Amino acid sequence: MDQVSVAGVRLAAIEAGVRYQNRRDLVLIELVQGAQTAGVFTLNAFCAAPVTLARQHLRKASPRYLLINTGNANAGTGARGLADARTCCDAVARECGVEPEQVLPFSTGVIGEPLPVDTIVAGIPSAHAALANDTFAEAAAGIMTTDTRPKLVSRSLLVGGEKVTIAGIAKGAGMIKPNMATMLAYVFTDATLSAPTLDRLLRSGVNQSFNRITVDGDTSTNDCCLLTATGQSAASVEDEAGVCDPAFEAALEEVLRELAIEVIRDAEGATKFVTVEVSGGATSDECLHVGYAVAESPLVKTALFASDPNWGRILAAIGRAGLQELDIDSVQVRLGDTLIVANGCRAETYTEAAGQAEMDKRDITIAISLARGECAETLFTADLSHDYVSINADYRS
Amino acid sequence: MDQVSVAGVRLAAIEAGVRYQNRRDLVLIELVQGAQTAGVFTLNAFCAAPVTLARQHLRKASPRYLLINTGNANAGTGARGLADARTCCDAVARECGVEPEQVLPFSTGVIGEPLPVDTIVAGIPSAHAALANDTFAEAAAGIMTTDTRPKLVSRSLLVGGEKVTIAGIAKGAGMIKPNMATMLAYVFTDATLSAPTLDRLLRSGVNQSFNRITVDGDTSTNDCCLLTATGQSAASVEDEAGVCDPAFEAALEEVLRELAIEVIRDAEGATKFVTVEVSGGATSDECLHVGYAVAESPLVKTALFASDPNWGRILAAIGRAGLQELDIDSVQVRLGDTLIVANGCRAETYTEAAGQAEMDKRDITIAISLARGECAETLFTADLSHDYVSINADYRS
Repeated sequence: MDQVSVAGVRLAAIEAGVRYQNRRDLVLIELVQGAQTAGVFTLNAFCAAPVTLARQHLRKASPRYLLINTGNANAGTGARGLADARTCCDAVARECGVEPEQVLPFSTGVIGEPLPVDTIVAGIPSAHAALANDTFAEAAAGIMTTDTRPKLVSRSLLVGGEKVTIAGIAKGAGMIKPNMATMLAYVFTDATLSAPTLDRLLRSGVNQSFNRITVDGDTSTNDCCLLTATGQSAASVEDEAGVCDPAFEAALEEVLRELAIEVIRDAEGATKFVTVEVSGGATSDECLHVGYAVAESPLVKTALFASDPNWGRILAAIGRAGLQELDIDSVQVRLGDTLIVANGCRAETYTEAAGQAEMDKRDITIAISLARGECAETLFTADLSHDYVSINADYRS
Repeated sequence: MDQVSVAGVRLAAIEAGVRYQNRRDLVLIELVQGAQTAGVFTLNAFCAAPVTLARQHLRKASPRYLLINTGNANAGTGARGLADARTCCDAVARECGVEPEQVLPFSTGVIGEPLPVDTIVAGIPSAHAALANDTFAEAAAGIMTTDTRPKLVSRSLLVGGEKVTIAGIAKGAGMIKPNMATMLAYVFTDATLSAPTLDRLLRSGVNQSFNRITVDGDTSTNDCCLLTATGQSAASVEDEAGVCDPAFEAALEEVLRELAIEVIRDAEGATKFVTVEVSGGATSDECLHVGYAVAESPLVKTALFASDPNWGRILAAIGRAGLQELDIDSVQVRLGDTLIVANGCRAETYTEAAGQAEMDKRDITIAISLARGECAETLFTADLSHDYVSINADYRS
């Protein structure tokens, strides 16, 4: 990938020693004065202290600095956790000459242990000194926990002859079922966007990307996603009525979706990338119920791991998804291009060899047609492998 | 265990060769003329053909024979599946001299393959010839699939000086989250009970036993639970108003609960038996939401497998259970006798050593107090181990 940069954004990732040595675990991101930022945060009731504080700060001021540590989630840490997050923001504010409300704190890692504040505060001056505009890759690496690779997606396009860039980083491999929010993700553009438009773009984009993935159904306490517009590009992407350039909007959606897909491709222990398409639903909600029942079924996921076209498990998951008066004779299930289920039973054209050929692929699509309406939803998930068990039985994440 | 028998019930388990050789896979149970039977069945929309037919037959007549095959679920088999189940009932009716409606069919095993009807029908005469009243253990073994041991629970008690016996068998180790029904379970008593009382006892008993267990959240297509009263005991357990002797009712609840617990103790790959107690809920439903979020969280289950007191994952699961306005500072979490979480964070008295000692046990209780009301619910589950993945990746169940 070419060097990525977004005018108005500088990043640094340093080894602060929060939990492990020899690992970049503290990231500082500087946003130019005048940049607009929108954010969405986890709906987990036990949301982490930094999530609570970041939400408060975002309401009060336009952020100038983002501080992200790995190795410790500062979640389930009560009043002390909130005080610790505040101390980190104060330290950045002092070092960088801004108000504490202009700093947003983020933490990811083990839940329930006190944040090593002194270690983090001690690292801030070197992070500040290291800020640069070509360090997106280092920052993407610096926010990883059980991730096996950094997640960085960017797009550039011309709008009215002027270049605009969008670049985002994300982390996450387990405890993934973002709910109206995401695992840690930060997306930046040099476009000029108003606050309401930024918020709308973030919410609608996240809803079709991070809010459509699941590894294990476990919504994290620390999920959040930010979108920042630095306004440094000369391109005009938003008109006075708040309408966005469609190519820009599409590019932004693509960045969010690709980042979300990257999370699933790097899901803990994953050997398969699985797309679950549910169509013909009466509502989006019922498509999502069916989709998540299939995507989170341990039996479906272990069959995927085994490359076993055991479609009865898919059928059983659809059947328990709670849809009222589901006409099972109208349900169709496809594995890739292969029709498996029709008229409530195995399709006449189906052969075990055809099912096996689909299952042997690394990328698998399960397409379910409910034939009750016009709604459709697409989810992304991974299989359930021995390595998932190993990673989560061996690692205190 | 002493020889179990219930007057009015005869059972046989034979090797019919439905899917594997040298394995008892066909069970025939005879109920005395005049016996009353109540049943509950899976709510999975893709319920199996035998479930559909058993439900129909139960509405029309008092059953005299139950026919149960393993190795094939006859689910996801459409119109042919229903015809196949009918053929089996017809064969039993002819062999035993009753009407087809007096026969209830049950199947368990792989989903989506045609039932080997000829093999089953061929086995019926020898099953009929083998009927005996001391063969509960053989029948319990004959309905097993991935179970590692048969599940048979019985109680005898005196009511008004007369002996009454209750005995039940069950099977199930995976695809376990019974929903208003159970995995296959058959409970018999020689007491005399009216049809409405039998139904009430079954429903309330199942609700606190089979409907409170989960292995993997995957409700099966074939779940069902029957309760038969043969009326052969001289004891009077029900008065004219339909009120039951409390000791009898308690004994029946115990049998159902112990059978359900046996299913969890034998859950696929299980190394732990886990009780999740949720108290202080405003409603039973919110207790169940929290309980199932914890009991089905892959992250909680892998931590249990690792004997890792990683209580942050329990907190995260509670937090995502969807309770409105949960006051996280009032939530308490105990592991056995050890208080872990209070005031929204780690309890001051908690030590990692104390948590580790609880986690090292085979039987673990996670007790969650929500402090929002008076409702409480108890669930039972198992951990998520490498063997769970192996069993479900290697075995086409």
